[in-house]
Amino acid sequence: MANVRIRYKDLERFYADIFVAKGMSAAEAAAVADVLAWANVRGVDGHGGMRIPNYLEYIDRGEYDPRAQPQIRMLGPTAFIVEAARAAGPVATMHAAKHAVATARQYGVAIALVRDTTHTGAIGRYPQWVAEQGCACVMMNGGPPFMAYYGTRTANLGTSPISIAVPGPAEQPLLLDMATSVVSNGRLRQAAVAGETVPEGWALDAEGKITTDAKKAVVILPLGGPKGSGLSLMFECLTGILAASPLLALWADPAGPKPPKQSAMLIVLNVEMFRPLADFRRDVGELAAAIRKLPRQEGFDEVLMPGERGDRRAAIRRAEGIPIPAALWKELGDIARGLGVVPPSPLA
Amino acid sequence: MANVRIRYKDLERFYADIFVAKGMSAAEAAAVADVLAWANVRGVDGHGGMRIPNYLEYIDRGEYDPRAQPQIRMLGPTAFIVEAARAAGPVATMHAAKHAVATARQYGVAIALVRDTTHTGAIGRYPQWVAEQGCACVMMNGGPPFMAYYGTRTANLGTSPISIAVPGPAEQPLLLDMATSVVSNGRLRQAAVAGETVPEGWALDAEGKITTDAKKAVVILPLGGPKGSGLSLMFECLTGILAASPLLALWADPAGPKPPKQSAMLIVLNVEMFRPLADFRRDVGELAAAIRKLPRQEGFDEVLMPGERGDRRAAIRRAEGIPIPAALWKELGDIARGLGVVPPSPLA
Repeated sequence: MANVRIRYKDLERFYADIFVAKGMSAAEAAAVADVLAWANVRGVDGHGGMRIPNYLEYIDRGEYDPRAQPQIRMLGPTAFIVEAARAAGPVATMHAAKHAVATARQYGVAIALVRDTTHTGAIGRYPQWVAEQGCACVMMNGGPPFMAYYGTRTANLGTSPISIAVPGPAEQPLLLDMATSVVSNGRLRQAAVAGETVPEGWALDAEGKITTDAKKAVVILPLGGPKGSGLSLMFECLTGILAASPLLALWADPAGPKPPKQSAMLIVLNVEMFRPLADFRRDVGELAAAIRKLPRQEGFDEVLMPGERGDRRAAIRRAEGIPIPAALWKELGDIARGLGVVPPSPLA
Repeated sequence: MANVRIRYKDLERFYADIFVAKGMSAAEAAAVADVLAWANVRGVDGHGGMRIPNYLEYIDRGEYDPRAQPQIRMLGPTAFIVEAARAAGPVATMHAAKHAVATARQYGVAIALVRDTTHTGAIGRYPQWVAEQGCACVMMNGGPPFMAYYGTRTANLGTSPISIAVPGPAEQPLLLDMATSVVSNGRLRQAAVAGETVPEGWALDAEGKITTDAKKAVVILPLGGPKGSGLSLMFECLTGILAASPLLALWADPAGPKPPKQSAMLIVLNVEMFRPLADFRRDVGELAAAIRKLPRQEGFDEVLMPGERGDRRAAIRRAEGIPIPAALWKELGDIARGLGVVPPSPLA
C-alpha cells in the first residue's frame, strides 16, 4: 500500500486541530496530539493517528469527554489518585506524571493511580517524559480485554503493558515499553489493516483456534504463557481493582463495543535523592556500553538498548517525514474536512 | 534418585540451627530458615535447602556476614534505603518489608531499596508476607550475571525476578513470582543436580551454543528475547545502579566465583488508603472466579491463579512432609554434624 509522508510537526498540529474542533482546549488537544505523533515518529504506528477515528467515535458516544478536567486526590504526602472522569488518556496521564515528578522532587518518590481514563495511547511516552526530568519511572496499565488468561480461549484480560524508563548517559532515556502479550493490540490491528499474516502463537480466532490471519485474530496470547497473563492479572489488581474501576465490568457484553476505560499506575523515583544523578547516568551508560561490546549470538549484527530502535526511527522520521498509509491519510483527511480542519500537505 | 521426607517444621528448625551454629542470632537464623523452608514447602526447591552449602561457603569467604545489622536510611517520609552490609538476604529484606508496611500504614505507600545484601532467596516470600498484612507489593531484584542480554552469548545480566502479591479473597494472597529469564537459575541448578536434560531455548553452554544438558548450561536465555532482557536491565538500573552497587562490578572476573551480592526494590501500597480492603478482596475474588469459569484452550483441565500451584503443593507438603533428595540430605547432615547440629529424623 502506498504511503504519504507528512512532516512530524505538521502531523502533530493536524492531530491537535482535529481535537480542538471536537471541543477540546488547545493545551489538552496538544497533549493528545503529542502522544499520538510520538507513537508515529517512533514507528509504533498502531498507537498513532490510526486511533483517531476510534477516539472521535468514543467522543460521539459520550465515552470520552473532551472537556473533562482530571482531579487529583492526595492519599498521603507521596500517593494520589487522579480522577480522570473519562478525560483523554494523555491529558489525565500527563497530569499525573507532572504531579508525580513534582512530588518526587520534594519527597523522593511518588505513586499515582489514574482512574477511569480513556485510551492511554503508547504508554512509553509518560515514563520517557518522567526520565527526561531526571526521575526513574515504572508505569503499569490495565485496559479492555483483548488477551486470553493462560489456558483460556477468550479475550478476558488487557494486554496490559509495563513501561520503565531511567535517565541514561545521553539526552534520550533508556525506555522499555512492552505488552504482557506476545504482541500488542496496536501492532496486531496494524497488521490487520495491512492485510498481513501473523506468526502462529500470536493470536486465536473467535472460535479459540490458533490463527495466522490478522483480520480474524480476536484473542491475543500472553507472553510466556502464565508469566504474561500473570503480570496482566496483577496489573489489573494494581490499577483497575485498586482504583475501584475493575475490568470485569467490561465483560458484561463480550461481543459489544469495548468502551475505552483504562486505569494506570505510575511509580516515580527522584534519582538524585538516592545518589547523584550524574553518577547514576554514568553507571547506566557504562553498563549499556559493556553490553554492546559483548560477544554476540549468531545472527546478530548489533545489540540494542531498550528504546533504541524507536530513537533511531524517530531521528529518521523527524528528518524525512512520517509515512502514513494512503488509505488512512484519506480517512483522516475526510474526517478533518468534515470538522473544518485543513490537513497539511504531504512532502513531495 | 531416592528422596527422604522431612516434616516441614523440623526442616525449618534444622536450617535455623545450622545458621545459629555459624554465628547468627536466633531471630535472624529463623528469618533465613523461614525463606529457605518456604521455598521447599512450595516446591521451589532450587531456592530451598540446597542453597545452604553455598551460603556457608559465602560466610567462610567473608562475603556473607552472619552478624551484620541492616540499617535504615530514610530519604523522605515514604522512601528509604536499607544498608544491608552483606547481611543475609532474608534478614535485610524482611527488615525492609516490615518497615515498608509500617510506613505504608501511616502514609499510604512506601518504597524500599535494599542495598548490598546477599542471596535474597525465593523472592515471592516477601511480597506474600506484605500482602498478608493487607498491602499490595511489587518487588524487583537484581543479582549476579547468569543470563544473556538479548543477542549476546555470555552471562551478563541477572535472571532478575519480579514478584507481585495482592490480598485475595481467601487467606492466601495472589502471588506472582517469575524470573525475567525463560527459566530461573534455581530451577536450572535443580535440573543439573538431578542430571536432567532441559528444553532447547533455555540455556547456552560456555561456548555460547544452545545446550539441553543442564550440567553444561552456564548462560540462561531471556524470556521473550528483548522483553525479558529489557526487564532485567531496567531492574538492575532500579536496584543495583540506583543503590550505587552496580552489577557491572561483578564482571571483572567472569570465570571466577560470583559473590552473593544483590540489591532489591520493594514497592508497598496500603490497599485500605485507596479503597476498603474488603471491597478490593471481593473484586480480586470475582475476577479470579470469572477467569476460572472461562472456556479453556484444548489440553487444559483447569485454570490456575498466580501462586496457586505453590499453595497446593504447600498444603500437601505440610501434611506429608517435604521430599529432599537423599544425596542432598546426606550432604546437609554431614555439614550439620560438623557444626554440632543434629539433623531431624526423616518421616517413615
